[in-house]
Amino acid sequence: MQGAYLGIDLGGTEIKAVVVGPGGDTLFSKRESTHAEQGRDAVLETLVGLIREATGRAGLPVLAAGLAIPGVLDPETGIIELLTNFTPEWGGFGLLEALQVQSDIPCFLVNDVRAATVAEQMWGAGKPYRDFICIAIGTGIGGGLVLNGEVYAGSRGAAGEIGHQTMVPDGPRCNCGNLGCLEALASGYAMARDAREAIATGDVDLAQAVGTDEPTPEGLALAADQGNVTARAIFSRAGEHIGRALGNLVCALNPEAVVVGGGIAMAGELLLRPIREEIERRTVVFTPRRGGVALHLSPLGGRAGALGAAAWAMKRSGGERAK
Amino acid sequence: MQGAYLGIDLGGTEIKAVVVGPGGDTLFSKRESTHAEQGRDAVLETLVGLIREATGRAGLPVLAAGLAIPGVLDPETGIIELLTNFTPEWGGFGLLEALQVQSDIPCFLVNDVRAATVAEQMWGAGKPYRDFICIAIGTGIGGGLVLNGEVYAGSRGAAGEIGHQTMVPDGPRCNCGNLGCLEALASGYAMARDAREAIATGDVDLAQAVGTDEPTPEGLALAADQGNVTARAIFSRAGEHIGRALGNLVCALNPEAVVVGGGIAMAGELLLRPIREEIERRTVVFTPRRGGVALHLSPLGGRAGALGAAAWAMKRSGGERAK
Repeated sequence: MQGAYLGIDLGGTEIKAVVVGPGGDTLFSKRESTHAEQGRDAVLETLVGLIREATGRAGLPVLAAGLAIPGVLDPETGIIELLTNFTPEWGGFGLLEALQVQSDIPCFLVNDVRAATVAEQMWGAGKPYRDFICIAIGTGIGGGLVLNGEVYAGSRGAAGEIGHQTMVPDGPRCNCGNLGCLEALASGYAMARDAREAIATGDVDLAQAVGTDEPTPEGLALAADQGNVTARAIFSRAGEHIGRALGNLVCALNPEAVVVGGGIAMAGELLLRPIREEIERRTVVFTPRRGGVALHLSPLGGRAGALGAAAWAMKRSGGERAK
Repeated sequence: MQGAYLGIDLGGTEIKAVVVGPGGDTLFSKRESTHAEQGRDAVLETLVGLIREATGRAGLPVLAAGLAIPGVLDPETGIIELLTNFTPEWGGFGLLEALQVQSDIPCFLVNDVRAATVAEQMWGAGKPYRDFICIAIGTGIGGGLVLNGEVYAGSRGAAGEIGHQTMVPDGPRCNCGNLGCLEALASGYAMARDAREAIATGDVDLAQAVGTDEPTPEGLALAADQGNVTARAIFSRAGEHIGRALGNLVCALNPEAVVVGGGIAMAGELLLRPIREEIERRTVVFTPRRGGVALHLSPLGGRAGALGAAAWAMKRSGGERAK
């Protein structure tokens, strides 16, 4: 049957919805504030409302919906294990069932980084490749692996935790409890922390360049573009850690490409250059005899999660031929 | 057809041959010195002689032969790209064709670490698992990945180079040219180098314990077992690096198990204890919610390469049902 698929990306700040048609074209898209602080029932109501609006306005029958969540779920039951930046009442909640009873179309849940990986594979930078690594650099760092043309899930659905690779054995404490994880060294959170600490210890130039004691990664990127030395160093250092982690994965997996996405990736060459240089420096054993590895910035930007949720719904409901 | 498979492990020092029967039983086995220094033709003659002897003495029809090589080959053509510790004339040599014209059974080539991985999967510690990592710790460090029940090859057949993950950015120079590779920090070669350096800078206790200025990993293991502090520290440090590299791969791949093999693994708990502790310390994000990861010593020991070559021949010639 000719039809469309709905993808919803449930973020801590915004909910993004997109309906994708048979040719990958966007038939409908909408963003709403999440208001996670208003609790589970309010968020659920927003989600159900979005499903109804999207199915009503797509102009084609919507065959299934995918929901990308920023956390951990049991893929069999659709029960939430952990939802980062949401109220604790989400833990243990049967989200899939709750959505399904209020919706007329089949629903599927997927982790947001895995969704973004599927989106890169179907409509993004991963399209030409059978084997590639996705990394999403935002407040945290996550990843996804496409191996032999399929998203690799791992033995318990948890593959891709590349943000928790230990890069500096006695480095800063990570949210997970370990020391020196990539995420604790090179995420948006880590970059903002490093900038804050520099300002607190007297870096007047940086304070002036970002205009605040509490700089954001976006503000830092702007300051770096304008030539601020500390801001540039923070991006270089982060990129070097990320490049080394990716280089290690390239040695283990011999992929064709790496796709860099997530909010912080929008800093572009500021971050990509040190990543590229460190991958090249650290994967000597793969060049030139073995063809090296391509590095791409995600072309999907902030839409990757919602697009991937739609792609996930398409795959899971058996409509993959439609791609 | 009821039959057997021959596996040959071409090592720099020894060539090991084994014929495996339909139930995985050993029907014939033999070891010969390689004499790599006598050149390619002499080694080839030994290989062909072994194939003839093995097929003649197995007691069952031998349906195919696998040859595991310590180097890089083009899997399509069977041409050698690089053969570690052999004369340079092997580079570019069409080994598969040369074997095939002198042999009455189909022959298959495979890298030795990949062969060992297949052996662990079919007859070793990997048997119960769908997703596991093999690491072979010998003079160098290599690896193999079994993902979704299949040996994962990577985009150009080069997956599993886990010895070339950068563990210490400014660490010792590796053979590959990079600094601080796992292999440059924790292989048998690296351990012997560290011991030699300790002795050269006045570690009299270690010199006495190993009885030489040029200690081997085996001698070091003995000294460590007898309580020598430096020898124990060398194994602990190596194990810590290996455990951290494996922990990083566990985060990326979420396997069920890790299998540790290779000559140095015979040091047992001396090496396994720090590996186990470091994996546990560094994969917080996987325990206990996600079931952790099992750690096994290879039960196949020095036979893994030859057994794996036989298993490879079985798989490639379509006899896998026989397992």
